[in-house]
Amino acid sequence: MKGWSFLRANLETMDVCEESMPIKWNGLGGRSLTSRVIGEKLPPTCNPLGQENLLVFATGILAGCGASSSDRLSVGGKSPLTGGIKESNVGGKAGQAFARLGIRCLIFSGSASTWKIAHISKDGIRFEVADDLVGLEIYEATSRLRQKYGKNAAILTIGPAGEMLLAAANIGVGDMEGIPARHAGRGGMGAVMGSKRLKAIVVDPTGGEPPAFFDSEALVAANRNFSKALLAHPVTGKSMPIYGTSASINTINTLGGLPTRNFSEGSFEFAERISGEALHDLILERDGKTTHGCMPGCVVRCSNVLPSENGQELTRAFEYESIVLLGSNCGISDLDAIGCLNHRCDELGLDTMEIGVAIGVAMEAGLASFGDAEAALKLVNEVATGSALGRVLGSGAAVTGKVFGVSRVPVVMGQAISAYDPRSLKGTGVTYATSPMGADHTAGNALPGSTLPDGTRPDPAQSENQVRLSRYLQHLAMTFDSLGLCWFTRGPILADPSLLMDILHAHYGGSWNMEKLLEQAGEALQVELAFNRAAGLGDQHDLPYFFRTEPLGMQGRVFDVPIQEMNQTLKRS
Amino acid sequence: MKGWSFLRANLETMDVCEESMPIKWNGLGGRSLTSRVIGEKLPPTCNPLGQENLLVFATGILAGCGASSSDRLSVGGKSPLTGGIKESNVGGKAGQAFARLGIRCLIFSGSASTWKIAHISKDGIRFEVADDLVGLEIYEATSRLRQKYGKNAAILTIGPAGEMLLAAANIGVGDMEGIPARHAGRGGMGAVMGSKRLKAIVVDPTGGEPPAFFDSEALVAANRNFSKALLAHPVTGKSMPIYGTSASINTINTLGGLPTRNFSEGSFEFAERISGEALHDLILERDGKTTHGCMPGCVVRCSNVLPSENGQELTRAFEYESIVLLGSNCGISDLDAIGCLNHRCDELGLDTMEIGVAIGVAMEAGLASFGDAEAALKLVNEVATGSALGRVLGSGAAVTGKVFGVSRVPVVMGQAISAYDPRSLKGTGVTYATSPMGADHTAGNALPGSTLPDGTRPDPAQSENQVRLSRYLQHLAMTFDSLGLCWFTRGPILADPSLLMDILHAHYGGSWNMEKLLEQAGEALQVELAFNRAAGLGDQHDLPYFFRTEPLGMQGRVFDVPIQEMNQTLKRS
Repeated sequence: MKGWSFLRANLETMDVCEESMPIKWNGLGGRSLTSRVIGEKLPPTCNPLGQENLLVFATGILAGCGASSSDRLSVGGKSPLTGGIKESNVGGKAGQAFARLGIRCLIFSGSASTWKIAHISKDGIRFEVADDLVGLEIYEATSRLRQKYGKNAAILTIGPAGEMLLAAANIGVGDMEGIPARHAGRGGMGAVMGSKRLKAIVVDPTGGEPPAFFDSEALVAANRNFSKALLAHPVTGKSMPIYGTSASINTINTLGGLPTRNFSEGSFEFAERISGEALHDLILERDGKTTHGCMPGCVVRCSNVLPSENGQELTRAFEYESIVLLGSNCGISDLDAIGCLNHRCDELGLDTMEIGVAIGVAMEAGLASFGDAEAALKLVNEVATGSALGRVLGSGAAVTGKVFGVSRVPVVMGQAISAYDPRSLKGTGVTYATSPMGADHTAGNALPGSTLPDGTRPDPAQSENQVRLSRYLQHLAMTFDSLGLCWFTRGPILADPSLLMDILHAHYGGSWNMEKLLEQAGEALQVELAFNRAAGLGDQHDLPYFFRTEPLGMQGRVFDVPIQEMNQTLKRS
Repeated sequence: MKGWSFLRANLETMDVCEESMPIKWNGLGGRSLTSRVIGEKLPPTCNPLGQENLLVFATGILAGCGASSSDRLSVGGKSPLTGGIKESNVGGKAGQAFARLGIRCLIFSGSASTWKIAHISKDGIRFEVADDLVGLEIYEATSRLRQKYGKNAAILTIGPAGEMLLAAANIGVGDMEGIPARHAGRGGMGAVMGSKRLKAIVVDPTGGEPPAFFDSEALVAANRNFSKALLAHPVTGKSMPIYGTSASINTINTLGGLPTRNFSEGSFEFAERISGEALHDLILERDGKTTHGCMPGCVVRCSNVLPSENGQELTRAFEYESIVLLGSNCGISDLDAIGCLNHRCDELGLDTMEIGVAIGVAMEAGLASFGDAEAALKLVNEVATGSALGRVLGSGAAVTGKVFGVSRVPVVMGQAISAYDPRSLKGTGVTYATSPMGADHTAGNALPGSTLPDGTRPDPAQSENQVRLSRYLQHLAMTFDSLGLCWFTRGPILADPSLLMDILHAHYGGSWNMEKLLEQAGEALQVELAFNRAAGLGDQHDLPYFFRTEPLGMQGRVFDVPIQEMNQTLKRS
């Protein structure tokens, strides 16, 4: 029986090598696999933009099984932004295309001498010249590639930002409709792809044959149960499909945790205008789509399509993080303006979060006024010009802060903090400070209501139990990112883990339980920490000092989780 | 009897406080004192440009004793360049002025709301407005301050780079003639001074009364012996006075360790043209000064004054590091052009080393061609404009490399490597990688001929014994930097330690020996390492990867000291 395949492609020699999954890595997928590959094959001190770095793609453990929201694709490498190990995962249809070809892992090594496209199909990998795509923005490049390779192919591309090797560069991935509005956003994986002179990856699943399932019939039933549970849950069945991820803007604003004007405030006087409700109404008013799936088979469909006033598409996959960091964090309250910023980032191949925070820092430095949407757009467009200023912004918030001498720079390990102020959401703050990924909410986001397995539900604004909570959530996030499963499905699964275990059993046989998955996640986290240590990064991570000393909002909150306690967060148990 | 004083000045409140030296810090001075103060008083995670950072000045243990070359002044703080603890020491006449006022330590805390001058005299510290100095380059600012405060005062100023908070900004200090050609160069102490809105420090020693010596008569005799030994030594008595520090250019070039074209080569085909010998001849031809003291009382006088073709002063204190990093490292072989670059850096208040390496990196990125001196000067002048490009370069080589996507970036801990290629000078490489200061040759430079106390003399190009050598030299450098003693005097002192011990005994009484000094140095190094660890920096430091993988020159050398061995370099014994 055909197993999952493990591919290696060297861009310098153009050699391609297909193997079966190394036995020791059986049972791994997504982040646990990309991090294992990096931990084993990459010299930790290598230059992230040097040819030694690897660009690793891995499908999740659940890949191809047909369960809702289970085909996220992990992208890993050494990050030019953080200098540490990185995994960034993405929805859209790429993961499923990889899965349909039976690919569990694909590693790009070396650097090509001229720009290339990697074409992947049932016939293997071949490299094609990409000369006519060089310099093209992501939407345009994707559109040309779809014309050439057909609509069945999943396309992954970098934009000018990735070509320029900017540390905020992401990789654009087509959604269900092939529109490149999904991104492996964080940590500069687009720059790593650029450093290999790989402009695009085309994955044509036609005729592919994934490995067989242990019990296909049981799988269909288990998937159906899972979908039912998702649809019955108030978050995945109702609020997310209707309002999208920005449903939580009002909540976070009320909590005083909405980054506003470069994290100088925790609530935004115009939060209402950029809220999920406002976006929902605006989309409906313009005949857009409030309920839109990023990947085939997802029943949650939290994505959206926002038309402009004149009815043309303005942007899509317009999410909480982007809206807040390009919006309130820059003092901007006009959804159209924020949508336009979001879309330009998507076209240029820039992480909206990193750029939102970088613009906030630039505004603090006086390069533009808070609230000046036109100036913000000019700054984003500056990146496209390749000017020094554009390159600074495209190198992210930490570099922007250094270059312009700003002292309030919300970053950890060189990566911008995402759209939750850690003074009001302290568990997320612990994750920012201690995750091997740098400040990344997806590594373990302690949203209000987050509950420990023993039923403890820490108050987000208090420091008690936040280290325990972050530890748990970081293990859980690693688990979901290794399964290839969207984090948004955790509600129903945590309420009834058998939903997930039934799918895993039907997929692979054997017996599965949450404890074992969390234990495996812990091992993967230790691999990541060891890599970072060997790369020269310290074991002691704190948040930027101002979070501990500048009181936030009327409540005057500071981040006060003791650092000694934080250092225990990911200690091997 | 009056002891050495310990001053604190808060720029936010304008409060000044004078105390005696805390007893626990008795016997410390220079680097050992600045690092103790920082280790005890500074939150390690604070922002280097935030008002929490401290700017600490400390005179050396020998300060004021009248021995040759013994009045260097240490400047410490958290570095905006490395993110770790920093000490940068400087010659010139500031150290002696501090000593004559009996000051062992002066700590600036807080940040002023408008630009200030700190005026220090026997009457204490007072702050004056500096409005008319804002924006002035260091030479012009110093000249105005000398006019106002008289030629007896020592002046310390920052230039536009420090005002702009650029991480490569230094602090300019007047030499014997009051010309600000000496600098506390490394680690961005000028930016820390700028972040406090302190444009200048005026130290008027008139009427000052330093603490009495234990045995003044013996001190005069001991000092005389020391001077004699310096004059009798081939290095300090002959080669350095005649050729200055660039005497070693030919040697290092022959060894294949002369950074050339952004560290892509280890010898420069035009090394002869920039050598100490060539500089010597050029200076004499133009009636400049080859033998020039940086501080009063120094008998070595390794500094120099280079006139231009038309006889006006082009630059002074034109040193090995600056000549190599602005010269061969940028492919530039014209001493006048390099002198002009050196002088512009001095005027703007930029570390010539950091900028030399940053320009090399920028040239590799294609911003200018190697060897194009005019373009290099344009890049330096760009810093003065405050443009994004200028600010990038002024933020140093690491940021320049990040922004322009360069993968050969010779830095450690964000600080540029100095003018010795670690593939050919491996002991210096170990120091770069392991010093708490980042890549800083002054922290323990293993020049050819460096010898361990047991007589072992490692071959600079071989990896054997380099860790032991670096460990020893780092302890020795800490000792000299704590004494306030110029590193160049180590030859005679290591040959006959009693030269130094006699001075110490006459100064303070008690019994002194090298072992004890080295042991104290070890304790200070541990304080620095602990600070860096708590600041989030890792314990494992390596050189940039290319030094291990890109063979250098005809010998094909790579840096190959095993990292496990390197990690032991500063382990507590």
